Amino acid sequence: MSNGDSVRTYGAKIDPIANAFLTKESSDMYGMLRYFMGYTDEHFTPITSRTGKRFRPAVLLAIADGYGCLDDAMPAALSIELFHNFSLIHDDIEDNDELRRGRPTVWKVWGVNKAINVGDAQLVLALEALATMPANSSTYRVLQSFLLARYREVIEGQHLDFSLTEANLANAEVTEVVYLKMIDKKSAALIGATTATAGYIAGQSQTEIDALETFGREFGMAYQLFDDVQSLWATTAQTGKTPAGDIEERKKTLPIIRARDVLGTKQQEFLAYYADTKASTETILALVEETDALAYTNAKITGHKSRAYDALARTSLPQEKKEQLMDFGNSLVS
Amino acid sequence: MSNGDSVRTYGAKIDPIANAFLTKESSDMYGMLRYFMGYTDEHFTPITSRTGKRFRPAVLLAIADGYGCLDDAMPAALSIELFHNFSLIHDDIEDNDELRRGRPTVWKVWGVNKAINVGDAQLVLALEALATMPANSSTYRVLQSFLLARYREVIEGQHLDFSLTEANLANAEVTEVVYLKMIDKKSAALIGATTATAGYIAGQSQTEIDALETFGREFGMAYQLFDDVQSLWATTAQTGKTPAGDIEERKKTLPIIRARDVLGTKQQEFLAYYADTKASTETILALVEETDALAYTNAKITGHKSRAYDALARTSLPQEKKEQLMDFGNSLVS
Repeated sequence: MSNGDSVRTYGAKIDPIANAFLTKESSDMYGMLRYFMGYTDEHFTPITSRTGKRFRPAVLLAIADGYGCLDDAMPAALSIELFHNFSLIHDDIEDNDELRRGRPTVWKVWGVNKAINVGDAQLVLALEALATMPANSSTYRVLQSFLLARYREVIEGQHLDFSLTEANLANAEVTEVVYLKMIDKKSAALIGATTATAGYIAGQSQTEIDALETFGREFGMAYQLFDDVQSLWATTAQTGKTPAGDIEERKKTLPIIRARDVLGTKQQEFLAYYADTKASTETILALVEETDALAYTNAKITGHKSRAYDALARTSLPQEKKEQLMDFGNSLVS
Repeated sequence: MSNGDSVRTYGAKIDPIANAFLTKESSDMYGMLRYFMGYTDEHFTPITSRTGKRFRPAVLLAIADGYGCLDDAMPAALSIELFHNFSLIHDDIEDNDELRRGRPTVWKVWGVNKAINVGDAQLVLALEALATMPANSSTYRVLQSFLLARYREVIEGQHLDFSLTEANLANAEVTEVVYLKMIDKKSAALIGATTATAGYIAGQSQTEIDALETFGREFGMAYQLFDDVQSLWATTAQTGKTPAGDIEERKKTLPIIRARDVLGTKQQEFLAYYADTKASTETILALVEETDALAYTNAKITGHKSRAYDALARTSLPQEKKEQLMDFGNSLVS
């Protein structure tokens, strides 16, 4: 088992707990939530082929274990994983995505109305999971306020994403700053919340908690920007996705915005292709590759990873735990 | 000022607090939430013509004032009103309703995706509002667990409502029991949560809190069934709505289910009309009126009101406050 794997194995600890927690009554509503988590098929018959990486609980529990408080961290790990899946149920509606992890999405199987509503139920359940922390925990209120603020930040990020999706690439509002703010809120905020939560549970100082949040949040930025690069330059064999899918969908990711900004005399040509749904992906990608977009994005990724690991180094976690976390991080972003 | 009005005036206390609470940043997302609460127009310009009855905060604050803890009740009153409005934002999408309180709904103005997302934000904000209770409040955790369970029950009620909406009136699953369970969860649970919350805030005994919840929940049932009667038998001048709108929409409310159950030899004719979208409302209503559906529903309403007021009488609230609450109740259901 590699060090990276030693982090990954923590994720599976959340599954039996989540499965039981989502079995409040026999109503189909809870069946749909268990389906989405990968615990049942569409007829609510239990299956064992869980899907989803459980990336967030894995990291949270690995860090909590480093502080010697693994069991205490379960309610918060469950809350964050349920919140993450709530956001995916609603994102799938909003993005009109029919498949998630190779299975039909909730709205695709049961319709948009029920998918909105079961997502709402899962959001309440995410808060109820956190509330299973011991009644005498002095940490609860401060952690809850922290997580509620971060959960709302994810929703703010989704709102920014709508604005970017609606806008044309030629629009003055589509800037690198806005894009980075969007992914920071929509993706990185929850990863930072995950790592910081382990510090709250362990009763660490605010300085330590801040370092943990920086580790998670900066790593989250690297992770998202790496995904942008993968979409444009990885093969389908590597990703299992449509090659250059982000161009197909005319997303405004960092490499695209960077290319637009530095294409100079070819900028108008690039914008015209991007506005034309019939323009070929290859033509657009060739123009992106005339610029420093890949090198520029890779430099950003390196910067975020470096700041993430610097923050991790500042924590009081055991050296072996730090190495496990860096190995795990490198296995995700490289 | 009548006694009923003396309850009603408490509702307005929540508005300046809600308006400030929903102004987290300049993002349109928060503008949409203020719009829906009636604080701005579609361009986010402040307006003064607030809409919405603020029924729940009015009752909660009136009771809390009766216990001498009005100010302490504000965070919970805000939470419940924000939750209620969250549920309406999503209900409007699910029911395809274009108007609410005479104004275009959020999805109608800004599209379904943003409406789903701002509703999500409002649900998180409803929990954040509750978390503004003082950090040293020993009541917080027990009240929060109670409210989270009731909030989830409202969402369970919405799920049951989908099942009823999808089913044909001839379907064996469409029963009086299922319908009553649905309105109990979807509507009455939150009103019972509202009245019980005042007891929690005041530090009352569980017996008193249970009586308060019974008062609200039974009243909520009466209120919903009264609405069913109004839809079929009140004039547009009285309600501002389409006459017999529930028949137009082929809803399965208690009078309709009761008529079906006791129509005897005319049951098949009735079911055929109800399944035929071209059948006239008058024809259907005439068949309902051949049965005891109105008297049967009115008897149910009387029973629920009576149990509500009996429970109110068992509380330790000052006699004057009990009379104010009954007057207010009678002004809503009569």
